[in-house]
Amino acid sequence: MTRIIAVLGLVGVLGLAMAPGEAIAQSTDDEAAKSPWGSTDEIGALNMMTDGSRLDVLRQVRHGKVYDLGVDLFIGMPTCCVPFGDPNFQLFMTHSPSRDPATKELLSYSGDGVSMYTHTGTHIDTLNHFGLHGKIWNQVTAADALGARGWTKSGADKYPPIIARGVLIDVAKSKDVDHLPPSYAITVADLQDALRKQGLKIQPGDVVLTRTGLMTLWPDPQKYRLADSPGLSLEAAKWLVETQQAMVLGADNFGVESFAAKDPRNFVPVHSYVLAKRGVSLIEALWLEDLAKDQVYEFLFIASPLKIRGGTGSPIRPLAISIQLK
Amino acid sequence: MTRIIAVLGLVGVLGLAMAPGEAIAQSTDDEAAKSPWGSTDEIGALNMMTDGSRLDVLRQVRHGKVYDLGVDLFIGMPTCCVPFGDPNFQLFMTHSPSRDPATKELLSYSGDGVSMYTHTGTHIDTLNHFGLHGKIWNQVTAADALGARGWTKSGADKYPPIIARGVLIDVAKSKDVDHLPPSYAITVADLQDALRKQGLKIQPGDVVLTRTGLMTLWPDPQKYRLADSPGLSLEAAKWLVETQQAMVLGADNFGVESFAAKDPRNFVPVHSYVLAKRGVSLIEALWLEDLAKDQVYEFLFIASPLKIRGGTGSPIRPLAISIQLK
Amino acid sequence: MTRIIAVLGLVGVLGLAMAPGEAIAQSTDDEAAKSPWGSTDEIGALNMMTDGSRLDVLRQVRHGKVYDLGVDLFIGMPTCCVPFGDPNFQLFMTHSPSRDPATKELLSYSGDGVSMYTHTGTHIDTLNHFGLHGKIWNQVTAADALGARGWTKSGADKYPPIIARGVLIDVAKSKDVDHLPPSYAITVADLQDALRKQGLKIQPGDVVLTRTGLMTLWPDPQKYRLADSPGLSLEAAKWLVETQQAMVLGADNFGVESFAAKDPRNFVPVHSYVLAKRGVSLIEALWLEDLAKDQVYEFLFIASPLKIRGGTGSPIRPLAISIQLK
Amino acid sequence: MTRIIAVLGLVGVLGLAMAPGEAIAQSTDDEAAKSPWGSTDEIGALNMMTDGSRLDVLRQVRHGKVYDLGVDLFIGMPTCCVPFGDPNFQLFMTHSPSRDPATKELLSYSGDGVSMYTHTGTHIDTLNHFGLHGKIWNQVTAADALGARGWTKSGADKYPPIIARGVLIDVAKSKDVDHLPPSYAITVADLQDALRKQGLKIQPGDVVLTRTGLMTLWPDPQKYRLADSPGLSLEAAKWLVETQQAMVLGADNFGVESFAAKDPRNFVPVHSYVLAKRGVSLIEALWLEDLAKDQVYEFLFIASPLKIRGGTGSPIRPLAISIQLK
Repeated sequence: MTRIIAVLGLVGVLGLAMAPGEAIAQSTDDEAAKSPWGSTDEIGALNMMTDGSRLDVLRQVRHGKVYDLGVDLFIGMPTCCVPFGDPNFQLFMTHSPSRDPATKELLSYSGDGVSMYTHTGTHIDTLNHFGLHGKIWNQVTAADALGARGWTKSGADKYPPIIARGVLIDVAKSKDVDHLPPSYAITVADLQDALRKQGLKIQPGDVVLTRTGLMTLWPDPQKYRLADSPGLSLEAAKWLVETQQAMVLGADNFGVESFAAKDPRNFVPVHSYVLAKRGVSLIEALWLEDLAKDQVYEFLFIASPLKIRGGTGSPIRPLAISIQLK
Repeated sequence: MTRIIAVLGLVGVLGLAMAPGEAIAQSTDDEAAKSPWGSTDEIGALNMMTDGSRLDVLRQVRHGKVYDLGVDLFIGMPTCCVPFGDPNFQLFMTHSPSRDPATKELLSYSGDGVSMYTHTGTHIDTLNHFGLHGKIWNQVTAADALGARGWTKSGADKYPPIIARGVLIDVAKSKDVDHLPPSYAITVADLQDALRKQGLKIQPGDVVLTRTGLMTLWPDPQKYRLADSPGLSLEAAKWLVETQQAMVLGADNFGVESFAAKDPRNFVPVHSYVLAKRGVSLIEALWLEDLAKDQVYEFLFIASPLKIRGGTGSPIRPLAISIQLK
Repeated sequence: MTRIIAVLGLVGVLGLAMAPGEAIAQSTDDEAAKSPWGSTDEIGALNMMTDGSRLDVLRQVRHGKVYDLGVDLFIGMPTCCVPFGDPNFQLFMTHSPSRDPATKELLSYSGDGVSMYTHTGTHIDTLNHFGLHGKIWNQVTAADALGARGWTKSGADKYPPIIARGVLIDVAKSKDVDHLPPSYAITVADLQDALRKQGLKIQPGDVVLTRTGLMTLWPDPQKYRLADSPGLSLEAAKWLVETQQAMVLGADNFGVESFAAKDPRNFVPVHSYVLAKRGVSLIEALWLEDLAKDQVYEFLFIASPLKIRGGTGSPIRPLAISIQLK
Repeated sequence: MTRIIAVLGLVGVLGLAMAPGEAIAQSTDDEAAKSPWGSTDEIGALNMMTDGSRLDVLRQVRHGKVYDLGVDLFIGMPTCCVPFGDPNFQLFMTHSPSRDPATKELLSYSGDGVSMYTHTGTHIDTLNHFGLHGKIWNQVTAADALGARGWTKSGADKYPPIIARGVLIDVAKSKDVDHLPPSYAITVADLQDALRKQGLKIQPGDVVLTRTGLMTLWPDPQKYRLADSPGLSLEAAKWLVETQQAMVLGADNFGVESFAAKDPRNFVPVHSYVLAKRGVSLIEALWLEDLAKDQVYEFLFIASPLKIRGGTGSPIRPLAISIQLK
């Protein structure tokens, strides 16, 4: 029953057309890649970061203004994955002024617990979030590295802080819309057009952030949602990762990619491609409105995932500081 | 009964000598302060940060090596506050490869939920964590600003990212011990000695981190614990905040301050002083071992609290990058 | 913000017309009652149970067939109160065969945690769930009895097991419908009609269960929901409690009563009336389909709330055993 | 790391002497049994209950006094399994009088969430809790029936309410002690002595409750604990289940059996034997003090597990009503 519910959940929410037996050459041939950084690698493309790369971008900082790329975490906030059975966001007080007897006369003592899906609000997806045919990045299997409480490989605890050059591709602005239409799949040409208009070039090792404009609908859970989110097409993701050598992909929607996927057997083709085959992490639900408004397209990007041992992701609050001359 | 348990919890864990009626002039005179930054201020001393102060420290960066000041979050980790009734750290899988029916053939889908006290692992205490006589920082009362799910004032959601000059005062090294003895209360002279040996001066607006060496005992929950932790005396905290104008205080123990407190009615005199009277936030359970080993005492400090709406704190993973010439 | 969200949640979900200043004589005059069972009473009408009353109904048992009146608790189940910010139902494995290293060779060790709103699935509402003007049943105030982690009065921990005569009023059958229409408010005449057709009389101290037929829509969360649930009118509830002297009211919907309430300032007029003014507990989301099918209208009713200290309710799985002669 | 912690947890808490390679003939030969009730059976010995058996015991009721065999669930309560990484008990308010803005003027609205290990307080262990060599009761494997969120076989949702003859064997009284000494393993002779003194005979299908007296130490978590709990020896459990044909075993300690186990590779030999090989469920942490005081040794036993889908157990609050003539 749990299983049926789960299947129905995915089918219902994502509109999957589950046609058993249908030939899907592309997906079924896919498998997780071996890492070019060696048999013990767990972080993939983040290996592109070095002391040199960090110092290089730090030295380009021209301004002291900090752009906050994270959203609030709050009761009732939009979530990608409650329809898939994941927990909704909860904050609850465990100590409360005038109600905590040990301290009520002098101290006003407040404390609180928090409970959430690790992929809540602005967050990073780690490489163990999606694999292919039983293997995650670097061909690690569940038999090798999956315990009752999570993976021992490629979890958030293995992730370094991310300090790199970040770039923003404002596709919504390039197309002169508040936000891309539902389920719109961004093409390579869309990215190239926007980059050209912005006078921007991607460099190897960049954190590449794509703006769909969907955050203009935040936090309405009926509008800011996964089921029909615009986002990257698989081709666009491939172009960014293979041709442009992006280190990390991020966006202002849930999931970076466009939903629902066309492949009836793979509801997250971009996820499985970047995570399992390219070792490229995703950052989702980014607040890009302030960067976009100020036309800050090149910046020092800083994100510091919580080292949740085994975690398939972590809520983060990334920062950007302009490195543009103007 | 819940109340009795809670009282017994505090008494038992912290060794409070609850002598009702005993005269405690200092504590009972105290009350939360009005903010010098105005009636709507919710972040206190963090107002010392400006675009100028941030750019100033960013420009001093000389190295690309990043020091990670956060600890792992894991099942069974030491926690300050389970004896006070707070939740222990939990990570649990909500999607699991080969067990998630919708995706089991092609995709290896992993996801997880997390549940914890907001003051777990390396974390920041926000100004609504402790008040005095019913008022938190800026004389905000529960009647004004406390809802069922948390405060509407001075929560983690109101906190800016912290980008400032950081300094490390290595008291354990100065005293030539692995770690300070249980319940040791660091004096002003201790801080001055260590600063002199390090050739270091605190500047107004600094994030001042004190090293007790307690992290050498991490993660043994019998040794790394709150009940008899060494840490700052109230006098030392006052010297740092008032004389030296520190913006934030941090340490490598639970609670920054020394436990158990001598005041039988206030088990956290440093907390209530810095949070309620000075608007100074605390950062706790910092990993300072790598900075200490490399003798990095001056650095760019970066921390980005999750914007948990109303939260009395947030787990964080701060970073340090040396600004020393050598 | 949290506050605004919460208000909007109630307004949106329940269609409240919040007209400030509107005169609502009935509600604003109401206040919580003193208990006729004395100043220390916390359980209200449950005091009607005695050893004699229990033995009386136990001795009437004629059959060994047990009717299970509880629903399953499962991921994705319908919940009353997620729109009000309450947690959704979660079950998560903490030990898992072949993944728990300490035991993986010999033992296949499974364990799990559970997290939910206390009013999930079939459950009882205790007398501290709703009060009026700051007082719950027996005029207990928050200042007297509300701690950070719940009430010290009238919580589920104070509740005795319930062993009493139960009766079923099948209103849906009486009206010859699968289920009552959305928002239908059952009248006194509806109850009297159904009782007459069933040849059934209520006795003082009965657990009175009303069938709306809504469980025929379970577990579709779009159809089995609180927002427009049929249920008792306030008049019908009053008739059951005052005229008929029911000890407990139960039903097969969320909330027993009809939603949305007509009173713009009180979205749960039956709750506040029975809990705060009459000391009568509610049992909600009961599975009554088997009793209805077999026309079992008089039965031994057994429910045993978990003694959650301070809890405003408890999930339960009540049982019924026919005491009918046939 | 999680794995190592878990192993150390078990070793540390239970004092296991893990000697790899040591010959343990008994355990390694064991495997889960096929059910005599057929290939689809998920509840094992509970199949012994029939309408006839239930009516038989119901008709023997002579008294209206109800014995409550459940303990309170509260913040800070003793728990078996926090040292194994399981969640501690949490209750937290989600709605709170005068702090819930939508209702604060008229209604005093309280609500709460609960979070716990399913084996918290008085609870039942279902047959999927422990298997042997990868198979649970009826030789069900994880490949067949284990999803990401729990088993689809033998979970608490499959359990019928338990209505049966219960008997109490008061071993502590028979030995004239308040409670058995730490780690004491009750022998067959101990049970026979106590039964003889009580003038009591076990009948096939009984729920057999053993009293160690450990509840006299409740709720001190330093004394009422799993690590060195007295309880049944494997031989005594076998005698109850095989010779006496008990349907369910219960006790007033955590785990029913004696800890630490002598077998270095099986820390729960009674659990794995009764659950996986005999289909006999366990009920733990029972409050037997009132029955013992009143010398009520034969009774109607009623327990109604929450139907947690897939759950390896459920908190319950069982009831007893005397069927003794006196």
